[in-house]
Amino acid sequence: MKIKIINGPNLNLLGIRDKRFYGETSLDEINENISKKALEMGATVDFFQSNSEGAIIDEIQKCLGNYDGIIINPGGYTHYSVAIRDALEAVRIPAVEVHLSNIFSREDFRRKTLTGQSAIGIIAGLGAEGYILALMGLKNILHKREGI
Amino acid sequence: MKIKIINGPNLNLLGIRDKRFYGETSLDEINENISKKALEMGATVDFFQSNSEGAIIDEIQKCLGNYDGIIINPGGYTHYSVAIRDALEAVRIPAVEVHLSNIFSREDFRRKTLTGQSAIGIIAGLGAEGYILALMGLKNILHKREGI
Amino acid sequence: MKIKIINGPNLNLLGIRDKRFYGETSLDEINENISKKALEMGATVDFFQSNSEGAIIDEIQKCLGNYDGIIINPGGYTHYSVAIRDALEAVRIPAVEVHLSNIFSREDFRRKTLTGQSAIGIIAGLGAEGYILALMGLKNILHKREGI
Amino acid sequence: MKIKIINGPNLNLLGIRDKRFYGETSLDEINENISKKALEMGATVDFFQSNSEGAIIDEIQKCLGNYDGIIINPGGYTHYSVAIRDALEAVRIPAVEVHLSNIFSREDFRRKTLTGQSAIGIIAGLGAEGYILALMGLKNILHKREGI
Amino acid sequence: MKIKIINGPNLNLLGIRDKRFYGETSLDEINENISKKALEMGATVDFFQSNSEGAIIDEIQKCLGNYDGIIINPGGYTHYSVAIRDALEAVRIPAVEVHLSNIFSREDFRRKTLTGQSAIGIIAGLGAEGYILALMGLKNILHKREGI
Amino acid sequence: MKIKIINGPNLNLLGIRDKRFYGETSLDEINENISKKALEMGATVDFFQSNSEGAIIDEIQKCLGNYDGIIINPGGYTHYSVAIRDALEAVRIPAVEVHLSNIFSREDFRRKTLTGQSAIGIIAGLGAEGYILALMGLKNILHKREGI
Amino acid sequence: MKIKIINGPNLNLLGIRDKRFYGETSLDEINENISKKALEMGATVDFFQSNSEGAIIDEIQKCLGNYDGIIINPGGYTHYSVAIRDALEAVRIPAVEVHLSNIFSREDFRRKTLTGQSAIGIIAGLGAEGYILALMGLKNILHKREGI
Amino acid sequence: MKIKIINGPNLNLLGIRDKRFYGETSLDEINENISKKALEMGATVDFFQSNSEGAIIDEIQKCLGNYDGIIINPGGYTHYSVAIRDALEAVRIPAVEVHLSNIFSREDFRRKTLTGQSAIGIIAGLGAEGYILALMGLKNILHKREGI
Amino acid sequence: MKIKIINGPNLNLLGIRDKRFYGETSLDEINENISKKALEMGATVDFFQSNSEGAIIDEIQKCLGNYDGIIINPGGYTHYSVAIRDALEAVRIPAVEVHLSNIFSREDFRRKTLTGQSAIGIIAGLGAEGYILALMGLKNILHKREGI
Amino acid sequence: MKIKIINGPNLNLLGIRDKRFYGETSLDEINENISKKALEMGATVDFFQSNSEGAIIDEIQKCLGNYDGIIINPGGYTHYSVAIRDALEAVRIPAVEVHLSNIFSREDFRRKTLTGQSAIGIIAGLGAEGYILALMGLKNILHKREGI
Amino acid sequence: MKIKIINGPNLNLLGIRDKRFYGETSLDEINENISKKALEMGATVDFFQSNSEGAIIDEIQKCLGNYDGIIINPGGYTHYSVAIRDALEAVRIPAVEVHLSNIFSREDFRRKTLTGQSAIGIIAGLGAEGYILALMGLKNILHKREGI
Amino acid sequence: MKIKIINGPNLNLLGIRDKRFYGETSLDEINENISKKALEMGATVDFFQSNSEGAIIDEIQKCLGNYDGIIINPGGYTHYSVAIRDALEAVRIPAVEVHLSNIFSREDFRRKTLTGQSAIGIIAGLGAEGYILALMGLKNILHKREGI
Repeated sequence: MKIKIINGPNLNLLGIRDKRFYGETSLDEINENISKKALEMGATVDFFQSNSEGAIIDEIQKCLGNYDGIIINPGGYTHYSVAIRDALEAVRIPAVEVHLSNIFSREDFRRKTLTGQSAIGIIAGLGAEGYILALMGLKNILHKREGI
Repeated sequence: MKIKIINGPNLNLLGIRDKRFYGETSLDEINENISKKALEMGATVDFFQSNSEGAIIDEIQKCLGNYDGIIINPGGYTHYSVAIRDALEAVRIPAVEVHLSNIFSREDFRRKTLTGQSAIGIIAGLGAEGYILALMGLKNILHKREGI
Repeated sequence: MKIKIINGPNLNLLGIRDKRFYGETSLDEINENISKKALEMGATVDFFQSNSEGAIIDEIQKCLGNYDGIIINPGGYTHYSVAIRDALEAVRIPAVEVHLSNIFSREDFRRKTLTGQSAIGIIAGLGAEGYILALMGLKNILHKREGI
Repeated sequence: MKIKIINGPNLNLLGIRDKRFYGETSLDEINENISKKALEMGATVDFFQSNSEGAIIDEIQKCLGNYDGIIINPGGYTHYSVAIRDALEAVRIPAVEVHLSNIFSREDFRRKTLTGQSAIGIIAGLGAEGYILALMGLKNILHKREGI
Repeated sequence: MKIKIINGPNLNLLGIRDKRFYGETSLDEINENISKKALEMGATVDFFQSNSEGAIIDEIQKCLGNYDGIIINPGGYTHYSVAIRDALEAVRIPAVEVHLSNIFSREDFRRKTLTGQSAIGIIAGLGAEGYILALMGLKNILHKREGI
Repeated sequence: MKIKIINGPNLNLLGIRDKRFYGETSLDEINENISKKALEMGATVDFFQSNSEGAIIDEIQKCLGNYDGIIINPGGYTHYSVAIRDALEAVRIPAVEVHLSNIFSREDFRRKTLTGQSAIGIIAGLGAEGYILALMGLKNILHKREGI
Repeated sequence: MKIKIINGPNLNLLGIRDKRFYGETSLDEINENISKKALEMGATVDFFQSNSEGAIIDEIQKCLGNYDGIIINPGGYTHYSVAIRDALEAVRIPAVEVHLSNIFSREDFRRKTLTGQSAIGIIAGLGAEGYILALMGLKNILHKREGI
Repeated sequence: MKIKIINGPNLNLLGIRDKRFYGETSLDEINENISKKALEMGATVDFFQSNSEGAIIDEIQKCLGNYDGIIINPGGYTHYSVAIRDALEAVRIPAVEVHLSNIFSREDFRRKTLTGQSAIGIIAGLGAEGYILALMGLKNILHKREGI
Repeated sequence: MKIKIINGPNLNLLGIRDKRFYGETSLDEINENISKKALEMGATVDFFQSNSEGAIIDEIQKCLGNYDGIIINPGGYTHYSVAIRDALEAVRIPAVEVHLSNIFSREDFRRKTLTGQSAIGIIAGLGAEGYILALMGLKNILHKREGI
Repeated sequence: MKIKIINGPNLNLLGIRDKRFYGETSLDEINENISKKALEMGATVDFFQSNSEGAIIDEIQKCLGNYDGIIINPGGYTHYSVAIRDALEAVRIPAVEVHLSNIFSREDFRRKTLTGQSAIGIIAGLGAEGYILALMGLKNILHKREGI
Repeated sequence: MKIKIINGPNLNLLGIRDKRFYGETSLDEINENISKKALEMGATVDFFQSNSEGAIIDEIQKCLGNYDGIIINPGGYTHYSVAIRDALEAVRIPAVEVHLSNIFSREDFRRKTLTGQSAIGIIAGLGAEGYILALMGLKNILHKREGI
Repeated sequence: MKIKIINGPNLNLLGIRDKRFYGETSLDEINENISKKALEMGATVDFFQSNSEGAIIDEIQKCLGNYDGIIINPGGYTHYSVAIRDALEAVRIPAVEVHLSNIFSREDFRRKTLTGQSAIGIIAGLGAEGYILALMGLKNILHKREGI
């Protein structure tokens, strides 16, 4: 099971950015934890972060034939990027969308997810732990699909 | 760690209801799986299901002083119940909202969660596994809080 | 042919409530007329009325395996109850929604039916006679389905 | 009791048009059934179909002094024709609006009826049987009015 | 000065239709009064009434080269007929829109005029006298234009 | 017949302000013309102009018992002044609202009239002539009322 | 003068719930104060609290013939319960709606009252004192009505 | 305890204006009753009425340092005056907003209060008695604050 | 390959109407060019123009069994005619919608196409050449379909 | 270069009002600073403040022929005063709108500027310094215009 | 005649992505066909594809002075990229927007084109043939412009 | 004092793009003027321009620890880039948003600024001078903050 973990704009600032919403751990520390957990689960994870919508789409497309699943936190692009939404739909690789904060209880413009329409599932508000839960949820879904 | 798991309207029909969205397992089977996982994690879980908005609010209130966390799937009430939303806010017990399907990619009226505004986090679209992920996410948050 | 007739909030007040919209006959008299008509048609009808959204959902669920059709007047719940809508959709028993008044020519908030999205058909504005027409419409549909 | 039955745009294509929504019977067959039922009920029915909004209005106006009731399926005009709505209001002849499909569970633009604001009642989703139910509902109302 | 006076749907019912809004005079009587007034003013008026949107557009087009001004009451079409709006704009003959009632204080859907966007001016709520005022207003405008 | 003519904000600038919409005549010249016409009609007219919403309301109230009709151009207040709307409604003196330009074909925010909801009629887009037409329309209505 | 005081969802938590909005007194203490005041005023008050929409409707209906007035705080149901709104309208007993906090300066979804459309008056933001003011306001209205 | 009572546009017409909404008592009579009640309560009240938004703001500002509380009925300004809303917020004197009628069950544009966002509480629909209830509610709040 | 070309309201005025949007060629000249091109392509084209919504629907229906494709410019009806939309959907003949101007960069009400929802494709803004491009596009699609 | 500086409602309270948004300096101190800066720049500035919409319009009109530019902070009127917007447009004197706070990041109703539609430019969020920047911006624009 | 053909996000996946909407041909095959057709027409075409909004804008800017026309399919950016819209407007090179599917009959968020507001024309729903039709339409327009 | 000046999409085209809105000076000339002014003020300014949303975010992030303030003109991204908005919020460096034209008096979609929600202040409509005013405004704010 190979999983690509894609983080969008400003997530490289974790630990710096507004702590009320995002916690104090840096992205590298988060990724390290995910790697450990993946190892336990017998999965391989690779990481990608970019502030660029285009680069994120490029990366999603490169997953074709190379990864079994995608975990994505599209950051601010969540709310308007039809292009990322289309990329996820086009590659047809199961994806779980993760948000560190509960976007559905913040500003009005954050309460809808366009990209999440192409995801299997969404996890929001559970902090960095959300990536690990996504990994487990994704594994569960991939196992079921193979089972059929 | 004591957790109350509250399921709302029509979730007692699981395994009967539209399988495109909700999978084939019954609510009892789901609950059994959650209990097993809880046991592994050293947590206690109790279950409640009702089709009545008022009964759900009563149950949330009864958690006061008796439970450390709530996992709730408010079913159809998710989208309009200010009263459940207020109950969750009032008891101030950390809650995670779970939806079996990805409500954010279904009909327009399902794409907003009113009750979820009072939850810490939301997990949607990952099927019955979502409850187990919620349990883990909740444990993680409760441990952090105690740690402070 | 067994049909359940479910009436929602405030319909027990018929004959008392605003007569401009609802006529002067009581719910018992209406039910008696429906029973007579059903007898003529070789159908059995049972009645249920509740002011509680949860109780109405419970009752819809109990129809599973026991009734061939449902006639429902969800009263005020018509306009916001996703939970009743989901119950009707879940049991997959043909349902006809009845309104005594023409809800589509009254206040703005009454001009949409959420519950009616899960019904086969809707009859509005024809008074108590609407229930009898619903019975006939339902019979017609059930006969066609069996005929296939 | 003389009743005019008016069908709007594209209803002459019945049996040809999308069968998911409209069934397989032609308009002539439907009308024949209505005539038979009317005969049983001691009523006279006349039929009119046009694709033209203006012709429908002309026909509604001609009912003045000639018919006791109108049954109308305004087809696509249902959703925007203020002019048909005004014609029905102007002649003050009791009218029942019929739709073969449940317009309230289809596309957003079909979920409101402008013309139905001038009707006594609305029957939707019960197929061609809806016309016969409308006839019976209309008879019931006309009898009550005379009774006063 | 030749003026065409065009009345839309249901205005042929004047004197019959709801008197709260439209007064008690018939369309013929109204037209007679307009003719008298026109004679005094040295103007010629011709009349046209139709319930058909297409016929009204045909008539507007026929004014090209034959009339100096148009007075139009588009009735129910006022609120949605882009096609009549475009016809008025296309012929570029000064037009005044007349409404017998004050459409801006009635139902929400009557409070906007689409056709009136192509008119020079609008007179509403002054009853049949509105046509005569429109005639005078139109004369005033035509005189000014020639004067330049 | 005594008529008060009330002009709102910026109408004192007529002849200066944007000529595309408002013509080249000053307010004094307009008023002089109205006075002449009124004399011919056997009516008395008095004039008032203010840029202040409160002063306009004061003036409307002073009309009570002193004037038979009001002609008002509320200028920019047309679109939001509930207070002027209420004043017109409170005094129950027949009022005609006049706009020099066709407000219904200008910016979106000008296409609704709040004050006009309390007027009998509205005349828009016919320039300064609109006041004279309003005078005539008002006279016509007052005569009819007395006739009853 | 017999008055029923009905409190909706979560009001049984008073003294526990968010103190910024609701104050520190328990519902029992509030009720005691109301009783004392009622005694002084020569009125009888009875209390009812429920988290269930249906139970609240049942209680409103039971007031028929038994109470002269209703004081109701529908809590979260205020903003969407057409069913409670209809119940209040149906029984035609004068009702005053009370809110402890000023709902009109809180979240957007709390700024409208559906239930309050069937009330005579509304008191919001004056804390528990609001119930006592409602009692006085209701007495004043009932006395006036009898006086006619 | 010194209280300023400010009435907005058209409230000087009380007893003249539409009696369905506003009752038959004049503003002077209302004020006299308030004065009597204030005397009983050991409070001083002063009155101000103006039709001008600016004058109302001036008066609110003058309360600074001179009054302990404000009772305000902003009339039509309630629904759009950001400026009055800001004045109330700026002076930080506790204010109660009073409306004679239940504005939340009238026209759509009256169902929101902008000014009320800066008030502590709102009383609507209880007629002139509302001012007296406001006085009592205000007293209660002021006493509590001093108590801290 | 037989193609029907249907033009809606006001397109008979081409060459007269506002040239900023529609060019200077008359409809007859346009049709002549289309005929020439069709001849080259081995296709037959027939033309129809009407200002009447009903007549356009009649014509669409007559295409059943007689034409392989439809090219339609519904003019102003584009934006509101559910009835034309339904006709196109009902006959299930491939249709291309053509607009001379780019309707998506004009007034707000022109930026949506209701009729175009039933078309295969849309060509807008390329002037009369648009019809020829539509012919070619239609041919391409018909060839592909046959090829399957 | 003569510049009029116009301040709207509640700006006379500066130094008193909510300091999160408006700083601690009084309006007189601000004006003194502006005067000094103007002196340096070789410009004359005059000041005006009023809480009255009408008085602000009067003042804008008086600028005609007397001032080369206007700096205006319309306070709460910014968001709804069509009348001030029209006054600025009518006098055609270059105006810069100043807001002490960043109105575009505050409440929803403050995020639009109606008056600013008639201004050349807008400066918001830079505190009292905004007036001085406006003065410089205005000077720059006036110099360019003269330069042509 | 030199034409730049710009394809936006995910169009490089053609042949892979959802075939219901986009056909089975790859982007390279499509481009080859366009090149052949261009050769026949005596035109030169160059191709560019990127998933990055910024890169697309860069490319549009580079067309300045180098290309006579642009054919652009902005993919998902169509619906929200003000920046691409501005780039097309800035370079003032005639552009035709192409969509393989009929975006106006898909999801709501796809039914508006922001970028298309800066295009001369739009072709949607005609598959890859749409590019060739755009080429022809563009040639036609460029020839006309030169002809003037 | 070190300030970064960031210009977004299409601003590199200044002097080429639509002159009604953007003036005739090139970006290099503008920057040169800013540099001169900065030198006078004892400040250092660095410049960055990109058409790419991602590159702009990268640049904002690089300001962390390196610059005291940011002046940003996000061009078309202003209206939808949650990602840029979040970047500005995350770095917590005081930023002023500049627009050459008055975006609040242009197309509807330009009248809101999403990015500006994270800025201290906004300057719009004052042309290239706006950058210099922003520099001065920023200096003023930074000095005040240090002074505390």
